Amino acid sequence: MISHKLILVTNDDGIYAPGLKALVEIAKKFGEVVVVAPNSPQSGMGHAITINQPLRLHKIQVFDGVESYECSGTPVDCVKLAKNVLLKERSIDLCVSGINHGSNASINIIYSGTMSAAMEASLESIPSIGFSLLDYSFDADFTACASFIGDIISKVLSQGIKECRLLNVNIPKLPKKELKGVKVCRQAEGNWIEEFKEGTDPRNETYYWLTGQFECQDDGEDTDMWALQQGFISIVPSGHDLTIHKALSVNRFLEE
Amino acid sequence: MISHKLILVTNDDGIYAPGLKALVEIAKKFGEVVVVAPNSPQSGMGHAITINQPLRLHKIQVFDGVESYECSGTPVDCVKLAKNVLLKERSIDLCVSGINHGSNASINIIYSGTMSAAMEASLESIPSIGFSLLDYSFDADFTACASFIGDIISKVLSQGIKECRLLNVNIPKLPKKELKGVKVCRQAEGNWIEEFKEGTDPRNETYYWLTGQFECQDDGEDTDMWALQQGFISIVPSGHDLTIHKALSVNRFLEE
Repeated sequence: MISHKLILVTNDDGIYAPGLKALVEIAKKFGEVVVVAPNSPQSGMGHAITINQPLRLHKIQVFDGVESYECSGTPVDCVKLAKNVLLKERSIDLCVSGINHGSNASINIIYSGTMSAAMEASLESIPSIGFSLLDYSFDADFTACASFIGDIISKVLSQGIKECRLLNVNIPKLPKKELKGVKVCRQAEGNWIEEFKEGTDPRNETYYWLTGQFECQDDGEDTDMWALQQGFISIVPSGHDLTIHKALSVNRFLEE
Repeated sequence: MISHKLILVTNDDGIYAPGLKALVEIAKKFGEVVVVAPNSPQSGMGHAITINQPLRLHKIQVFDGVESYECSGTPVDCVKLAKNVLLKERSIDLCVSGINHGSNASINIIYSGTMSAAMEASLESIPSIGFSLLDYSFDADFTACASFIGDIISKVLSQGIKECRLLNVNIPKLPKKELKGVKVCRQAEGNWIEEFKEGTDPRNETYYWLTGQFECQDDGEDTDMWALQQGFISIVPSGHDLTIHKALSVNRFLEE
């Protein structure tokens, strides 16, 4: 089934995460796969890059018949090393990141190593897709969504992503027969309501441990949160321009 | 000069960075300042958060008459702790982040700890401004831009930021008399052309060290890169919605 397509696979949960294995198995059907993934879990790393330390890259055997590397850096570092060192002489047709163990819908895209890796590839002009399953458990079931993911990869390889280079795909935690299909939608407005668990360590020093709950602040029926609640897989075409264009003229008073 | 305004000051270069000191001195003129900054340099941390480790927060005396804390986490962690622990019972009128030692114009906003801290505050509904000087050196001269920064803070405190809650302010490295003023503009399209310096460590293991050059890929005369090149301070009204809205309808083929 190997075609001439070259597919880079990465994630943020680390090279031994079951979600990565599931994505490699799907991607293999569509071309030659090269895996470059972090050697440790990197959830919540956002678009972090490593500039003050050297990076390590080791070839390892994790997936049958798939060239794989573990990297000491962040998800974004993995993509940079893949593009600029390992696959420097080659053209990467697609980058897929995930399958993340947990949601990257709504504002989660900002904190997500999975989506930042995919965004980094898109900045390098590579069409990129981040996949996330709304199940945080290590042994989440990635089989129900496999055919949908394969279908999205297949369509993107044959038709491309239009008017942008990055898709944020989130998948509800549902049995296959309850998955209603795919919706292309916008990122819902939402935020994390944080709490810090305060504790005392064995040396009697205070520590704070981040926790919190996501709160959707958007009742639109065209959002990723809405689609997911209805049982659809959400796809948000995404980019990297943070300008609020409608705010340009109204803030001219700052020039005076 | 202390008014009733409460201003949170943070950065990504760490609590001892001269750029932070310069910003604290300016902010003090406009209200009560509380500083929460990383205890080590955190450049390039993007929107990383610490979820797998506890965070430490220590009150320290760095700035005369200013309540200050160093935090073991990322810039975003600093803002979360300030908002949800230290200043939980109070209303923060403004968050300022920086002054960063180096540019956060164009795509640099994505990698920047300075801008991610400011964005995090904006997600918490706090008007926020990230300031960056286009000079990477530790002993950069922050005096030339001080009056401009004070002016921007003053205007935002009195009139607010319109149609968004986040400003990305970059300042050219120029003597005061050569600074031409302020331009409100959009984020320029640009990217980093990466290289990795490959080396061998004392144990004979290969390492890769990230380096590269920024390349502006936008010749518009309404961008931050253009304004900076002309000698203006650039202000980009920014947000957190990564949706490419024009890509929504054209990607509906993914639903079929």
